[in-house]
Amino acid sequence: MLSLLDLRARIDAGTLTPHGAVGLAREAIAARDDAVRAFACLDPRPAVAQEGPLAGIAVGIKDIIDTADLPTGMGSPIYAGWRPKADAPVVARLRRLGAVPLAKTTTTPFAFLDPTATRNPRHSGHSPGGSSAGSAAAVGAGMLPLALGTQTGGSVIRPAAFCGVVGVKPSFRLLPTVGVKCYSWALDTLGLFAARVGDAARALALLAERPGIDLVADTGAPRIGVVVPDFCDEAEADALAALQRAARAAERAGARVHDLSLAPLFGEAFACHPVIQDYEARQALAWEYAHHREALPPLLRAALDAAQDVGTDAYDAARRTAHRARRSLKDVFGEGDVDVILTLSAPGAAPEGLASTGDSRFNRLWTLMGVPCVTVPVETTGGGLPLGVQVIARFGDDGRALAAARLIERAVG
Amino acid sequence: MLSLLDLRARIDAGTLTPHGAVGLAREAIAARDDAVRAFACLDPRPAVAQEGPLAGIAVGIKDIIDTADLPTGMGSPIYAGWRPKADAPVVARLRRLGAVPLAKTTTTPFAFLDPTATRNPRHSGHSPGGSSAGSAAAVGAGMLPLALGTQTGGSVIRPAAFCGVVGVKPSFRLLPTVGVKCYSWALDTLGLFAARVGDAARALALLAERPGIDLVADTGAPRIGVVVPDFCDEAEADALAALQRAARAAERAGARVHDLSLAPLFGEAFACHPVIQDYEARQALAWEYAHHREALPPLLRAALDAAQDVGTDAYDAARRTAHRARRSLKDVFGEGDVDVILTLSAPGAAPEGLASTGDSRFNRLWTLMGVPCVTVPVETTGGGLPLGVQVIARFGDDGRALAAARLIERAVG
Repeated sequence: MLSLLDLRARIDAGTLTPHGAVGLAREAIAARDDAVRAFACLDPRPAVAQEGPLAGIAVGIKDIIDTADLPTGMGSPIYAGWRPKADAPVVARLRRLGAVPLAKTTTTPFAFLDPTATRNPRHSGHSPGGSSAGSAAAVGAGMLPLALGTQTGGSVIRPAAFCGVVGVKPSFRLLPTVGVKCYSWALDTLGLFAARVGDAARALALLAERPGIDLVADTGAPRIGVVVPDFCDEAEADALAALQRAARAAERAGARVHDLSLAPLFGEAFACHPVIQDYEARQALAWEYAHHREALPPLLRAALDAAQDVGTDAYDAARRTAHRARRSLKDVFGEGDVDVILTLSAPGAAPEGLASTGDSRFNRLWTLMGVPCVTVPVETTGGGLPLGVQVIARFGDDGRALAAARLIERAVG
Repeated sequence: MLSLLDLRARIDAGTLTPHGAVGLAREAIAARDDAVRAFACLDPRPAVAQEGPLAGIAVGIKDIIDTADLPTGMGSPIYAGWRPKADAPVVARLRRLGAVPLAKTTTTPFAFLDPTATRNPRHSGHSPGGSSAGSAAAVGAGMLPLALGTQTGGSVIRPAAFCGVVGVKPSFRLLPTVGVKCYSWALDTLGLFAARVGDAARALALLAERPGIDLVADTGAPRIGVVVPDFCDEAEADALAALQRAARAAERAGARVHDLSLAPLFGEAFACHPVIQDYEARQALAWEYAHHREALPPLLRAALDAAQDVGTDAYDAARRTAHRARRSLKDVFGEGDVDVILTLSAPGAAPEGLASTGDSRFNRLWTLMGVPCVTVPVETTGGGLPLGVQVIARFGDDGRALAAARLIERAVG
């Protein structure tokens, strides 16, 4: 894979130019994308900045994020060739940092569950996950050092784990979702894909203008609570084994690790996620539903059909429960002898075939809680598919989640 | 003015058709808009629905709100003729209710402070206020029964008061800001303009799918706390007199009225508003600033120049203070023997000339608090300019703010 920190170190040392670094990405795309199909479009003549902390870094932009210079298709024929007026703020920020938005990456239509044609870069017979399919696959295939995605349920953490890359879903609104096609305004969160935890931490710190995110000292002995939520269906054996492997490795590296169970309130909150998502989605996509229902793909159309009946009372009740759970989660970190939670990134490795993007049940609660989540690759199945684990910290403590993920990355590496 | 409830009553009674009702608006526009200049564009051949609770209601849409059928110019040459792909959800909802988005109304560029060419409908030598200038003026001139605006500082309440109409800034996110050009995602709030409180209450209840907003019984004896914040510069004498007049009228109508002073924390929160607004605006408008700085109008350009220096630490501190103030405001309502707060809508009547849209200092705190605000006309100055007062309720209690505003409207009427 292309490492952001490695490329930047070579540029800083003068052994690679920003043009050269972008050229590496373009060569990799030319060599590998016929098999992976990670892109909605490529910029044929990108402007390459010479200066800036991300100069030379080619970035993939999920195709629901507005770009002024490239079409933004939302993964849907309804928006085929659509050209927004302006770059989304996160894209403008990338440019200001010197990065090169080189390509739009595939997304499931409107970032819901209907699959893309993108293949898992580690095994072309398997899904890369979704909804940020192209971003995860492009980084996993070594075609890009950095890509942007979004998560409303599990659309960053899940595809990152499936593709064997690091994925970060930061604290809610750490990065602005302005200029990003909305599915649920209370849940949609911008996230990043990169080769290694350090790459993601550097990029997030720069994008968020928060250098502290990249400077959290490796906590010699983070207190890690291992969680396997009892309100989700069971995970597959290899995913549970990867979680145990990560926990034991962290322990050997000095972390204090213990099992943690979540109070029933979190199960209630978990059940509230779809209510909030559906109620908001039927508003966010009201124009598409009213004018282009027949052009919507089947899973999304069925979801929006059902969402028309979600009432305001149910939505309000769900938001109240989520609010209580967020306050309670603070206590888990504050009083629970826990710096970070370690849990599953997905129920197992990437599903076979392209019919399903996999299941977000180990992600949805954390998206609703707004807390930072990092997935880090831990091992590879006998079938050659990556497995990751997910590290979660309290709201606003993105640096700590990344530091703990880095400890695990080293410990299992 | 055109009353939504009156038009709907006539349609329900069969004495007016939806086409006829929209025709009344079109006739009024033809007769009066040369003097007022409230519109960025008009739909020459609007589709008029025959069914729906807002059938026949012509609506003005502030020109920072996306419409699929009409250009959305953001009040700026940068976006001249710009055609969004989709209707914003609030526009899609209007259509679903049967309403007719008849026109885009003028906005200050990107809803900041640089004035429009729109005139105050009550006195053409004065400003209509801003940023939702055209929406307030169109309703005030009797050209439309309903218009949408947005408020980040005081952009609904202030122009409504200046133009002698009812303005409602609902609870934060009661109406989704998806598809609305962002200035500050923590502050931007969709609002409404209408002739009378009952018109606004009906429209808001329908748009928000919350019939309760329109059903709060007139509280025979609401407890009203009259606030003149000591952290704002002084108001003009006629505005303070209007406030007293409204308070005494409410008292005669049965309300229990007492003076209320706000704790210093609210002064601190007031000072935090511009920090949050500026920090977010420089991100929200990053593309415009990077690519079209010279095309930005002077006040906005200067504000964004200065905003480049607002740091993340200052932003975080401001958000923490705002959060504490929001919690404290709950106690004001909970323990302060207060159902609603009554305060100034603006420091005085509409400024003379068009150089300034007026001052939002009596609005910004409440926008930051996210609480529902309603301005109701109380009297007219000797110079023929309207004065309004502002009614504020706790977060989520929009119906109570409207009910108290209705009591005052009747009491002073």
